[in-house]
Amino acid sequence: MSTQHSELRVGMVGYEFMGAAHSQAWRTVNRVFELPARVRMATICGRDAGKVAAAADRLGWDAYSTDWRDLVASDDIDVVDICTPGDSHAEIALAALAAGKHVICEKPLANTVAEAREMTAAAAAAQAAGVRSMCGFNYRRVPAVALMRQLVAEGRLGVLRHVRAAYLQDWIVDPQFPLVWRLQKDRAGSGALGDIGAHIIDLTQYVTGQRITGVSAVTETFVKERPLPGGSSGLAAQADGNGRATGAVTVDDAAVFVARLDDGALATYEASRFATGRKNALRVEINGSLGTVAFDLERLNELEFYDATRPTAEQGFSRILVTEAEHPYLSAWWPPGHIIGYEHSFTHQMRDFVEAVATGADPTPSFADALQVQLVLDAVTRSAELGSRWTEVEPALAALPV
Amino acid sequence: MSTQHSELRVGMVGYEFMGAAHSQAWRTVNRVFELPARVRMATICGRDAGKVAAAADRLGWDAYSTDWRDLVASDDIDVVDICTPGDSHAEIALAALAAGKHVICEKPLANTVAEAREMTAAAAAAQAAGVRSMCGFNYRRVPAVALMRQLVAEGRLGVLRHVRAAYLQDWIVDPQFPLVWRLQKDRAGSGALGDIGAHIIDLTQYVTGQRITGVSAVTETFVKERPLPGGSSGLAAQADGNGRATGAVTVDDAAVFVARLDDGALATYEASRFATGRKNALRVEINGSLGTVAFDLERLNELEFYDATRPTAEQGFSRILVTEAEHPYLSAWWPPGHIIGYEHSFTHQMRDFVEAVATGADPTPSFADALQVQLVLDAVTRSAELGSRWTEVEPALAALPV
Amino acid sequence: MSTQHSELRVGMVGYEFMGAAHSQAWRTVNRVFELPARVRMATICGRDAGKVAAAADRLGWDAYSTDWRDLVASDDIDVVDICTPGDSHAEIALAALAAGKHVICEKPLANTVAEAREMTAAAAAAQAAGVRSMCGFNYRRVPAVALMRQLVAEGRLGVLRHVRAAYLQDWIVDPQFPLVWRLQKDRAGSGALGDIGAHIIDLTQYVTGQRITGVSAVTETFVKERPLPGGSSGLAAQADGNGRATGAVTVDDAAVFVARLDDGALATYEASRFATGRKNALRVEINGSLGTVAFDLERLNELEFYDATRPTAEQGFSRILVTEAEHPYLSAWWPPGHIIGYEHSFTHQMRDFVEAVATGADPTPSFADALQVQLVLDAVTRSAELGSRWTEVEPALAALPV
Amino acid sequence: MSTQHSELRVGMVGYEFMGAAHSQAWRTVNRVFELPARVRMATICGRDAGKVAAAADRLGWDAYSTDWRDLVASDDIDVVDICTPGDSHAEIALAALAAGKHVICEKPLANTVAEAREMTAAAAAAQAAGVRSMCGFNYRRVPAVALMRQLVAEGRLGVLRHVRAAYLQDWIVDPQFPLVWRLQKDRAGSGALGDIGAHIIDLTQYVTGQRITGVSAVTETFVKERPLPGGSSGLAAQADGNGRATGAVTVDDAAVFVARLDDGALATYEASRFATGRKNALRVEINGSLGTVAFDLERLNELEFYDATRPTAEQGFSRILVTEAEHPYLSAWWPPGHIIGYEHSFTHQMRDFVEAVATGADPTPSFADALQVQLVLDAVTRSAELGSRWTEVEPALAALPV
Repeated sequence: MSTQHSELRVGMVGYEFMGAAHSQAWRTVNRVFELPARVRMATICGRDAGKVAAAADRLGWDAYSTDWRDLVASDDIDVVDICTPGDSHAEIALAALAAGKHVICEKPLANTVAEAREMTAAAAAAQAAGVRSMCGFNYRRVPAVALMRQLVAEGRLGVLRHVRAAYLQDWIVDPQFPLVWRLQKDRAGSGALGDIGAHIIDLTQYVTGQRITGVSAVTETFVKERPLPGGSSGLAAQADGNGRATGAVTVDDAAVFVARLDDGALATYEASRFATGRKNALRVEINGSLGTVAFDLERLNELEFYDATRPTAEQGFSRILVTEAEHPYLSAWWPPGHIIGYEHSFTHQMRDFVEAVATGADPTPSFADALQVQLVLDAVTRSAELGSRWTEVEPALAALPV
Repeated sequence: MSTQHSELRVGMVGYEFMGAAHSQAWRTVNRVFELPARVRMATICGRDAGKVAAAADRLGWDAYSTDWRDLVASDDIDVVDICTPGDSHAEIALAALAAGKHVICEKPLANTVAEAREMTAAAAAAQAAGVRSMCGFNYRRVPAVALMRQLVAEGRLGVLRHVRAAYLQDWIVDPQFPLVWRLQKDRAGSGALGDIGAHIIDLTQYVTGQRITGVSAVTETFVKERPLPGGSSGLAAQADGNGRATGAVTVDDAAVFVARLDDGALATYEASRFATGRKNALRVEINGSLGTVAFDLERLNELEFYDATRPTAEQGFSRILVTEAEHPYLSAWWPPGHIIGYEHSFTHQMRDFVEAVATGADPTPSFADALQVQLVLDAVTRSAELGSRWTEVEPALAALPV
Repeated sequence: MSTQHSELRVGMVGYEFMGAAHSQAWRTVNRVFELPARVRMATICGRDAGKVAAAADRLGWDAYSTDWRDLVASDDIDVVDICTPGDSHAEIALAALAAGKHVICEKPLANTVAEAREMTAAAAAAQAAGVRSMCGFNYRRVPAVALMRQLVAEGRLGVLRHVRAAYLQDWIVDPQFPLVWRLQKDRAGSGALGDIGAHIIDLTQYVTGQRITGVSAVTETFVKERPLPGGSSGLAAQADGNGRATGAVTVDDAAVFVARLDDGALATYEASRFATGRKNALRVEINGSLGTVAFDLERLNELEFYDATRPTAEQGFSRILVTEAEHPYLSAWWPPGHIIGYEHSFTHQMRDFVEAVATGADPTPSFADALQVQLVLDAVTRSAELGSRWTEVEPALAALPV
Repeated sequence: MSTQHSELRVGMVGYEFMGAAHSQAWRTVNRVFELPARVRMATICGRDAGKVAAAADRLGWDAYSTDWRDLVASDDIDVVDICTPGDSHAEIALAALAAGKHVICEKPLANTVAEAREMTAAAAAAQAAGVRSMCGFNYRRVPAVALMRQLVAEGRLGVLRHVRAAYLQDWIVDPQFPLVWRLQKDRAGSGALGDIGAHIIDLTQYVTGQRITGVSAVTETFVKERPLPGGSSGLAAQADGNGRATGAVTVDDAAVFVARLDDGALATYEASRFATGRKNALRVEINGSLGTVAFDLERLNELEFYDATRPTAEQGFSRILVTEAEHPYLSAWWPPGHIIGYEHSFTHQMRDFVEAVATGADPTPSFADALQVQLVLDAVTRSAELGSRWTEVEPALAALPV
């Protein structure tokens, strides 16, 4: 029965949080969705041999490697899945594309606009040869988010007036939380801005079908010095009151900005790791002349929809439980009311990626879409440096190869 | 690395809704949890060769069979997982236990008390030979439910006064919904009562650590005749106004009952498939002298806890997002705020089952626990037949072999 | 300008909680609503001269009296408003009606069916002479409740299947809470059942337009002995462990019952003063074949409405903020979103009462409506005494004078 | 009994929305609260004799006048209550203070900083002579808001990191909504910014006990031309497509800004009249190092409090139903769970005002507090004009007389 399926042999780089989430998705995708290709979890890659071997065993990969160049060079790999910190995205992706591998790369696409432009150009060039690439803004595949996009696209919200987006977490509120790689600019590029701010930039542009044209921003690092994590003493420049080695936090703890969309809507964005009690609160509300949608990732099976064209006495925010077969992705899962979780967004992402690759289509979001997000991040950073001055988002077109 | 693990070879009977849910759990359990044994998804079993072959391929089983007796007879099967309608549970489970297979059986344990007693006796006998058995009340493994139990067990609610349990669905509100097997007494045993009522009976007894001692009940079949599903014409006794063959609904659409728990708490239960808009709304609230907990399966990552020992001005229902590493089962999953779904309850169930079997412990709920639920269902049915007269729940002990 | 208005001179008996609530309503009603008559807060009546004088001064009544017979006898009183405990309702109401005064009487109408029948007969007789009477089930006048009734009456819910009603409070959870009059059968008639259970009986019958035909019930007194309140030592039969005088609680702490409505809907009712954390949680949900409504008095400005005739992908519970000019009573108040409170239900009640009296119409709920509630309370009590046996609600018609 | 009370004779200017709300509060305040003075609703004032006479009759004022100068000149008025549009606040308040009347003035204090400075100076001068003044930021007196302030003041939130404030309405989403005075700069000073933005500025400064030091802002007028209201044709400069006279909207429809508080917290503010479905959604969330509070005016009886010092497994947002006797203002009202409404904030405001005046204390917020809000509004306007450039809030001290 499976003989008629083609096979996609995946090599994944990285085995931490994102590596585990992607593994769960690769493992599940053919078990739930009918797809034209079968995924093989071929090789997992990481620098620490012991850890990557253990990860291969636990997560269910056929083999492991300690050098991502092995994946790029191998004839037995069709897809390279990049789950590493942002500072290595460009190098791996460029090599993989050059070797004719399809690439799926975690967000943000890169740590700098220059890298993102180079990756986008490489993807465009490879695309001519049938090589596919995609950036992993997985929240696009949350069914309620896809439903939001449908409602906006169908005109149910009318003219958009406001976007209100926040991604709030609280995992570094404690000043004693250590200086992990996500708090170091050379590894992560930026802090809350690129890690979670990038998600709400992409998500709102995706849902509205519009782009952010300009921003006014403020960023902040509330805790400027943190203890070094065990084994990272190489970084230490100072010691705290308890004699422990500390290092400087070189990224933002929070970023807030006001923005404009193409058609004039006014938008606010906030990304913070200091919002006590908010664990993974990606919240988006969009107000249009005919209606409003509101979403919260902590209740990702629900979408609130206010339809202002209904009779006045019946208008209200409808809590749509997005678990019906009529909703995006859900006919493959459980009966109505049986909710899904965070990890399903990755399974849906892999579903769409596999289908695109197997049918010769380009998956989305493309590297070009991800570059656009990078350009917004860049404008935010520049505005914050310039006393919040209104700053236009640089056009992406300049990046395309002539 | 996996060589030190023992292997548990599972044979599963049934490939519909429950079969798919169990498959997802068997496939995932070792990928997320550190366990002393590895699961092998050995054989899936069903009567229709074409369908079971397709299911084996899609769900990822090594082999398939069209006769459950093959599983029972095979030396290559350690565990028999029963996901069939209730009318076949007893026969399969008794044979599997007799053959020395560990058994996990979907709920309700059986269609009658007599069968449940026989199964319980068989399980007790097999247990002496190291054979394990468990009934699949999966909602015990929802982390928020496990947390509820912890809070009650720690005395945080004080003396229990009220239990308020409902399991509300709406999938047969339409009178044209066909007469599927779940609406036929000979297949399903009962309707909403055994299907979803059994869940809230087990869940509340589990969480409170108390048993239901007596009930007063009403049951109802709102739509008494339904169109036959395609291919089931053998059942037809009549035809509806459009000339379609119809058959009698022989189970309850809804069951409501009042109950008492061991220590005197007053409890209300409602199971219905006619609660328009409620898709999978298993709701439980427990009021004690010191506090209250409230839970809704449609928001299964949340638990509401009211602690009446806090200062009055600060008392309120706390919405605990049950996604912290400190919460049951969750250290193995995602960071805080990254929610899980319905299917995870099965993965947790398999985790506990595998650990128990591998370490020589008895998993819970046992068949005896499930018999207790069956006795409550029986008391409900008898009370409803006797004009809601207060009816004691028969003691389970009488069921044990002398 | 006010000269064209007739004047309604009110005499109110009782000055505690209900007296204060009614005073606020009488004081406000003409300031908010355009009505054909002006209310004069003429006389407040209570047995303790010092307290009633203070109440008159604080609540703004022109005069006070220590004997309700003064009100009945006075030519300067048009309306007698009865806010006393239930044991005195019948005597005062009968005298007032006989004297040709319009009567508004707090709920429950009486402590016994016999009294309620006598009052209903008297009201019917007085009605022939243009004397109006009304029972104070004020929650009918919560705008969201009135909107629920409209939706049901318009057929928006289709055939009703389930009613789920609870009125949950927690003010006597502490066993040291004293034995106030509401816990004494001779004063209050019953406990949670008549005090708050009566509200949900009336409310659900009002909203559905149907009557409860039979019940199966359980009642409970969790704390059977309580300290006497200061000054009530006359009641004491015993002393507690601390040597304080205690007395027996002679009413129910909680009452739960299952019921049937006229058209076959299955209903559950729960009234409790032991639901820790639930302060004034009157909750009603009604499921019909086409939709569902849900209401919670702790959020009384909101109504949830599920319309199953909407496209599947958009169905959800709409939280209607019932503050629009299009909603019942609200055009007289504040702009949309500016919420009202508990006391407004009384102002609306007085609005409807004044309008009815001034225009020669009969206000609702009538004493006959309130008698129907009393008959349900009586059936509940009888069923509870008879081991929860299904008990028909006695017809009200027998009560009418031949 | 009332003879020992002093009397405060109030003259109120304005009889529209605010006039009705203030009247309800003046009428109620002594009926609910024990206070050292009794309010007399002496005179209501407005320019249209017919309308003000009708308002006096309906709202219950002893007399009416068509010239506010009568109130200022009268020996029988102790308090002047200013409920007019912002363009007349300064003139009336200055005259009243000069005449030795206590003044309560609706917000925003004035239409310009210059006027606000003059009024503040006058209030300071009058204060020396025992004359009291207050600005009507009524939401400070919502019990849940007062409770928020208590929690912050007690250090329960630790170091403040984020303030997230929005005041969202939707009453002018329809482009055909007419050009009322609130949309005209010469009458209203500004649009959403001063009308509702002023509320969240004051509220967050009050709750945090900190001041806004600088802002970066964007303002927007989505609909730039609107039909003239009936009878306002004098304004018309143009006509729309249907030949109706239209006029230019000269105020903002929405204003968003990022701000800093004294101690470094990062704050976002949004005021909009284009947030479809949000009727009166004043929402504030404050994140501190130890906890978070969140409030929504559409559910004004509730406060959410997250206490991060609780055991991890029990942390959650507690929905405190702010209706207990232990909560601010509430011991005077109804039993727990019996909610209050919008208008009660005014009654509480008048309670505090009357108590302050009667006891010789200065009520808050003072005119100086209101001037601070005005200075923030001014900084917002300037930043918006300067391409969102970061703009310091001008210090209030410069305003004080030398």
